[in-house]
Amino acid sequence: MTTSVRQDDGDRRRGRRPGGTDTRAALLAAAREVFSEQGYDGATVRAIAGRAGVDAAMVNHWFGGKDALFGEAVLRLPFSPKELLATLLDGDPADLGERIVRTFLTRWDAQDGGVFAALVRSVAGHEQVAHALRDFFIRGVFGQLVPTVADDRRELRANLVAAQMIGIGMVRYVAKFEPVASTDIETVVTAVAPNIQRYLTGRLD
Amino acid sequence: MTTSVRQDDGDRRRGRRPGGTDTRAALLAAAREVFSEQGYDGATVRAIAGRAGVDAAMVNHWFGGKDALFGEAVLRLPFSPKELLATLLDGDPADLGERIVRTFLTRWDAQDGGVFAALVRSVAGHEQVAHALRDFFIRGVFGQLVPTVADDRRELRANLVAAQMIGIGMVRYVAKFEPVASTDIETVVTAVAPNIQRYLTGRLD
Repeated sequence: MTTSVRQDDGDRRRGRRPGGTDTRAALLAAAREVFSEQGYDGATVRAIAGRAGVDAAMVNHWFGGKDALFGEAVLRLPFSPKELLATLLDGDPADLGERIVRTFLTRWDAQDGGVFAALVRSVAGHEQVAHALRDFFIRGVFGQLVPTVADDRRELRANLVAAQMIGIGMVRYVAKFEPVASTDIETVVTAVAPNIQRYLTGRLD
Repeated sequence: MTTSVRQDDGDRRRGRRPGGTDTRAALLAAAREVFSEQGYDGATVRAIAGRAGVDAAMVNHWFGGKDALFGEAVLRLPFSPKELLATLLDGDPADLGERIVRTFLTRWDAQDGGVFAALVRSVAGHEQVAHALRDFFIRGVFGQLVPTVADDRRELRANLVAAQMIGIGMVRYVAKFEPVASTDIETVVTAVAPNIQRYLTGRLD
């Protein structure tokens, strides 16, 4: 990643980069700089793309938008939302709750919950990060998972799914309550999935 | 509170205080000092009672134990667990999930979620606080709420209820996702209570 980023400013100013992973890595590095200098609201897609020396359309092409770029570059989430959503939505909607619990725990467990805990620290400590996460998780992740049902509760459902997964993460990785902190993933899946499924498609009134 | 605490050391060494709210206030003040000096594990009930100039039995009498004293003195939780539990357990067990959601949100809302957010910051930042909270919430609060059912899942159930309430608190007060951040309490109660009730008494396998 470093080689594609550490080009000199002259290179950057000469215009667009060739496509491919170099562009992606350059955008990540530029995003870290620009978000850090300007904050989430101040950082524009145009400024980030300019810093990376690529066209602004590349942000949408590689990340799907500013929220997702923030998630991957600054929060260093170990997944691209696009790829995560594709995995989760591939299957029977009736089992979506189960896939959500299993997928999140599997990915979080893979770094011993470190990324989840770091995320909570960021959100709890910085109003601006909380704001960015709102957009990222509700619009970019959980909002996309809620099946199109004939009610006006899609945002509430996305909130509730997020709340349940954040709570499980808090108990497993941050507060480390037993038995949830040490139990196997499938025990948690079996216990929690029906509740997630109700938030996704059940009656909420 | 200050008057009962700022007695001179001679007074303290002369032995037990008279009972009543003076004792309670003195124990709270002593607990803040001793927990801060010794940490949670290092602070003994005997040391706290000694600092307050009262008998160690007063800690159990007024707070029910070291965990609860920690919760009230250091975490400054706006309730005594004893009184909270009495409120929650007073009623039909089939409606316990509903009472839990309504009661926690009502109390957290009363300080605009400030106590909840402060709690999360403490837990995320300090392993020792997380440890104390484990004992406080799981043994002292949620563990006491799980009805005696004929299974060996009582601790798992307590974990799951805690996870759901922590998650709702995170979304409403810390991450401030909409609509949960701004909606009325009863909307959240209606949406979340059946899930809490399943964790309390439903099948988890």
